[in-house]
Amino acid sequence: MHEHTVVVVGAGFAGMAVAKRLGGAPCRVVVIDRQNHHTFQPLLYQVATGGLSAADICAPIRSVLAPYPNVEVRLGEVMSIDVAARTVLCGDVAIAYDTLVLAAGMKTQYFGNDSWEASAPGLKTISDATEMRRRVLLAFERAEVEEDEEARRSWLTFVIVGGGPTGVELAGALAEITRDTLRRDFRRIRPAESQILLLDAAPRLLTSFDAPMSDYALRRLIRMGVRSLVNHRVLTIDDGGVTAESEGIQRRIPSRTVLWAAGVKGSSLAGHLGVELDRMGRVPVAPDLSVPGRPEVFVLGDLARVELDGKPLPGVAQPALQAGRYAAKVIRARLEGKAAPPPFRYLDLGSLATIGRHAAVADLFGVQLKGYLAWLVWLFVHLMHLVDFQNRVVVLIRWAVSYLTFHRGARLIG
Amino acid sequence: MHEHTVVVVGAGFAGMAVAKRLGGAPCRVVVIDRQNHHTFQPLLYQVATGGLSAADICAPIRSVLAPYPNVEVRLGEVMSIDVAARTVLCGDVAIAYDTLVLAAGMKTQYFGNDSWEASAPGLKTISDATEMRRRVLLAFERAEVEEDEEARRSWLTFVIVGGGPTGVELAGALAEITRDTLRRDFRRIRPAESQILLLDAAPRLLTSFDAPMSDYALRRLIRMGVRSLVNHRVLTIDDGGVTAESEGIQRRIPSRTVLWAAGVKGSSLAGHLGVELDRMGRVPVAPDLSVPGRPEVFVLGDLARVELDGKPLPGVAQPALQAGRYAAKVIRARLEGKAAPPPFRYLDLGSLATIGRHAAVADLFGVQLKGYLAWLVWLFVHLMHLVDFQNRVVVLIRWAVSYLTFHRGARLIG
Repeated sequence: MHEHTVVVVGAGFAGMAVAKRLGGAPCRVVVIDRQNHHTFQPLLYQVATGGLSAADICAPIRSVLAPYPNVEVRLGEVMSIDVAARTVLCGDVAIAYDTLVLAAGMKTQYFGNDSWEASAPGLKTISDATEMRRRVLLAFERAEVEEDEEARRSWLTFVIVGGGPTGVELAGALAEITRDTLRRDFRRIRPAESQILLLDAAPRLLTSFDAPMSDYALRRLIRMGVRSLVNHRVLTIDDGGVTAESEGIQRRIPSRTVLWAAGVKGSSLAGHLGVELDRMGRVPVAPDLSVPGRPEVFVLGDLARVELDGKPLPGVAQPALQAGRYAAKVIRARLEGKAAPPPFRYLDLGSLATIGRHAAVADLFGVQLKGYLAWLVWLFVHLMHLVDFQNRVVVLIRWAVSYLTFHRGARLIG
Repeated sequence: MHEHTVVVVGAGFAGMAVAKRLGGAPCRVVVIDRQNHHTFQPLLYQVATGGLSAADICAPIRSVLAPYPNVEVRLGEVMSIDVAARTVLCGDVAIAYDTLVLAAGMKTQYFGNDSWEASAPGLKTISDATEMRRRVLLAFERAEVEEDEEARRSWLTFVIVGGGPTGVELAGALAEITRDTLRRDFRRIRPAESQILLLDAAPRLLTSFDAPMSDYALRRLIRMGVRSLVNHRVLTIDDGGVTAESEGIQRRIPSRTVLWAAGVKGSSLAGHLGVELDRMGRVPVAPDLSVPGRPEVFVLGDLARVELDGKPLPGVAQPALQAGRYAAKVIRARLEGKAAPPPFRYLDLGSLATIGRHAAVADLFGVQLKGYLAWLVWLFVHLMHLVDFQNRVVVLIRWAVSYLTFHRGARLIG
């Protein structure tokens, strides 16, 4: 007898949630990912800034899904999807599906300026994070041995493009590194004299939060030594720095380390579904998260455009987790011949962004929090959502030691 | 006034020890290393087998030496040494020394068969360890999707060349991975059916220990599922496996994962000193650890050939640490115009090798220990010698969790 096969592409928050919830369902589930590990993306910036080690925020997909005998894991890259034939091409092997769950996520985009990538790496994967860490730590090493004053200053200038949560978190962490962590480590340079610039084209930081929260974040960052350049549009990025424009005036910022936190676009796999995508390459989905006209294909997580009160849900963990659980419910109902569950409803648990020690902003069920309390909430929520028990304990230890000693435990170049 | 400059090449156990002990001495100390971190080499095999993360066994050289204002750290590769001009070439910068401490360590050697390296990586650096981990974990992934029975078996055959402590530790850890860690993770293969072969040309394992210890290690490994092939000389290694010879009979072992733990040789920097090296490329040193005829040049750690009762000291942590401390004493005495300390004496604290859970061998001050107690001593000694407090806590946590759950916390491919 033919066994119903659910193919899940991508083992991020959405893919893992749907796979777990289909554990024990009357179907075979095949989870395909390019990596052997699930990555806890909200803490990638801490790997990029040496606070955590890569392994601390990763969990092997296989061991997370090991308890579910009907779930298989396949390491490989999905090259294309044939929705008519109902197959995905994984490497050079065609895998047939009855139900497809596409949760392939987003990748960094440079708005048509792909040449910027070499000079300004993004932060979507573990290897992105270790590359950022390498560049940041190497910049101080280069500055230490640089004889030329101007060249040294450009090694000690860090530009972060993008004032959303990732950009703010990176800027705050960099400020702490230069002011505290590296304080005594060098003999010729003073890391505290580094310049950290946070650029955004929008008129304020953290536009997904209310204005008072943006103001608070800005004030905290300034106090930590970060300069915020809002209303600044990037014109070019190269190995020597950034050229930006504000109110008709161009300025050149010499910098050897530019970090990109400005934009993402949908995985190119969305293009194989035969539907029109939105501006960010996301797939507009039906109320049950399937592709209109293709009830056997679901799109979940960042790659789906799910509208709530006319606004798309943000590309963060909670919508992805909830969508994964919901899709599993729909698939189970179909397999068991039950009535379809009501349309997907998103329970907004709020949003969080951290700036630094004792400083974060939170919007929880409409309640605005900032400062110490928001920071504690941030710590707790992130710790509790880490996938693996060992990771949770290790991250707690690393955070506690860093908190007490200002030391960072994963300052590895290479 | 000219300040006496001590250049230390290599930040391993010896280099770090000499630099720390020269902290506060009336000289300038420049520590040069290719990496920004000190690596705790005795636990590299645990990174290679997914038990620990790279950051867990590394400590940034700068932050370890930060408390000593007269000690500078320079990230860079020493290309050559000019003992007549008293300079080292670091990258393209010549650095003058008054005293040179060469502690550049050993690298993997293939006894003239350099082509083996691509198929059988060694284990001397963090990137070696992550490369080994990648190969080991990927082998199971490949086996899981391999349709051909014979090809699958060669993905599930692991050959470790070299039956010294590193080889025994790798074999034991691999056995635990296949029997315990991965037990439930795959659907088509059974990792426990993997073959783990430990090859050595010598007639027994762990030749640096007494014969009863070797016998014990062998019995434990057999019980864990490892096959030991002693008296086997490797003839060729390629991507398809190993050809070995024993008592005139050749055998071919098809394997896609060969790990090299068989040989090391001295850093090529030893060749710049103008003295004759031993067969392993080590520098025979005078009783005060300086190069005969070059009292301003010390060679420490694995790269030095220090004889004790006619036998060279082994290339492990204790001789390196003790030599580093001793050399600092000699240098300080010279700077302060005091009498030279008596010749270097090695205090033999013994040797240790672990096999697996509850199983290790130890030779402590001539007392032979094996089994559970030796294993506890091994755990304690390694934990206490980790350089960084945070690393000590994190490693303890990871070991405790692995002990209780058989899970390994750093199973990252890539």
